[in-house]
Amino acid sequence: MELTVLGCNSAKPTSNRHPSAQVLSVANHMFLIDCAEGTQFQLHQMHVNFMRIDYILISHLHGDHVLGLVGLLSTMSLLHRSTPLTIIADPQLETIVRSQINFFCENISFEINFIHIHFELPQIVLNIKGVSVQSVPLRHRVPTCGFVVREQPKEPNIRKNAIYKYGLTIADIVNIKNGKAWTDPVTGECVNRKELVIDPPKPKSYAYISDTAYKPDIVPYIEGVSLLYHESTFASDKEDMAKITYHSTAQQAATIAQRANVGKLLLGHYSSRYKETDIFEAEAQNIFPNSTAVYDGYKLVF
Amino acid sequence: MELTVLGCNSAKPTSNRHPSAQVLSVANHMFLIDCAEGTQFQLHQMHVNFMRIDYILISHLHGDHVLGLVGLLSTMSLLHRSTPLTIIADPQLETIVRSQINFFCENISFEINFIHIHFELPQIVLNIKGVSVQSVPLRHRVPTCGFVVREQPKEPNIRKNAIYKYGLTIADIVNIKNGKAWTDPVTGECVNRKELVIDPPKPKSYAYISDTAYKPDIVPYIEGVSLLYHESTFASDKEDMAKITYHSTAQQAATIAQRANVGKLLLGHYSSRYKETDIFEAEAQNIFPNSTAVYDGYKLVF
Repeated sequence: MELTVLGCNSAKPTSNRHPSAQVLSVANHMFLIDCAEGTQFQLHQMHVNFMRIDYILISHLHGDHVLGLVGLLSTMSLLHRSTPLTIIADPQLETIVRSQINFFCENISFEINFIHIHFELPQIVLNIKGVSVQSVPLRHRVPTCGFVVREQPKEPNIRKNAIYKYGLTIADIVNIKNGKAWTDPVTGECVNRKELVIDPPKPKSYAYISDTAYKPDIVPYIEGVSLLYHESTFASDKEDMAKITYHSTAQQAATIAQRANVGKLLLGHYSSRYKETDIFEAEAQNIFPNSTAVYDGYKLVF
Repeated sequence: MELTVLGCNSAKPTSNRHPSAQVLSVANHMFLIDCAEGTQFQLHQMHVNFMRIDYILISHLHGDHVLGLVGLLSTMSLLHRSTPLTIIADPQLETIVRSQINFFCENISFEINFIHIHFELPQIVLNIKGVSVQSVPLRHRVPTCGFVVREQPKEPNIRKNAIYKYGLTIADIVNIKNGKAWTDPVTGECVNRKELVIDPPKPKSYAYISDTAYKPDIVPYIEGVSLLYHESTFASDKEDMAKITYHSTAQQAATIAQRANVGKLLLGHYSSRYKETDIFEAEAQNIFPNSTAVYDGYKLVF
């Protein structure tokens, strides 16, 4: 998986931090996660071939997560995109986007499909070749969810020397790949699986949790993910403010990361009152050492 | 007057050219003219105190002239703006903006008023202390108009030495300022006006003409303006394309500038196929020497 952060700030942009948008590449698919104003400029600046985006996930209908959508769709159309695109979002977004496209984009060149999120319960919103996406209900001022994107387990590879040594047939190979034990017809012995296959790498997973009040009951849904992005709009100095506005602190994000035993934690969605973001990183690392405060343009292959 | 170009490109942005938006300061008012996606970031980058904007003029409802509006209004609200703001635009924009504000901006902190443009005929859309704005119907694929912003003539200043020399009363001063002749009661002679007043500077004016096919019948409305911005989406190598898409070439913009006898011509709204803009400037200067191809961040006090 490869993650690129296009914007890591909350609603009010600063001179070097744009509002929320990220690109995630996984299993030959490109996902755009949230789409604040300016997303198309950021994609351009960061040399992302945005015509390859095939799914757009929108966490909730606040402007700082969605106002770049129509501009991006319009530019894709001006570039003569023909591949369909799927938007996974609150059902109300479909009405808004379709009416704006009618107003602002002439003769849009590609089909847009919508998958509607229901915010009450976690839901598999997408299940395609190589990857699934699950929604995770969050607690914010409007219906909001996070997303867990999971690579599907790959098949094991059969060892070439085993094929020759045991004279495996196509049928044998299919059975072994499907996990069946294999008995050597010559010796009548069950061959150790490790001698027959190379196990595939462990599937990677990414959880995007923005925006939310501290919500420990999300832990089971993000348990053990390779990478967690958890909003930290505030540091602990503004914990009261976080509570009132239904946001989290860096300390709370790190507590979630620790309890969910994730591989690594990324912090973002900073309030523009913080000029520097070191305070977030330091606060989180006290609880969960493998924490990083991201910036616009942050990239990670994992 | 002071003009700042925030975006000088047409719809499809490039890495260094944003779509249409400009700020014009005149007579203690700040006008935003068009508001493409990213306008709020550009205002920030160019250190414009955008809370001072009191009027927003929108030429037409294509995305590259309007998609930054809701984001900007939302940020103004997050910054606790309380002063009302007026948007001058196609009547349909009011419906779109109000419904989006309901969706995307919680508890907007200031009042938004709309003045509706009727595109059939030129119209004085605004007439306030020190400045008037007239719409100029253009020829594009949707209802579109340009704008002529004019400083209102200032009163002449009475020469201090004349007050002492002739013992002018308040009533005399008001009469002289209003253009009446003044007769010295001692000598009975009519005093030369030049001896009594310093004439105010000639009022400045700015015409914004974007987007339009070549339309020479706008000349009477922009005759003699101090500064003309005329779109030049294409150079003459793509004159056919300009015709099909209802845009203009740099040569056509310069022809309009020459016929209207304007003070200076600015070129912009370039198609993203042009990496450099020298070709526009060179082409226009052949016809109208005082032509400049603008760039994002171009500033002119005139």
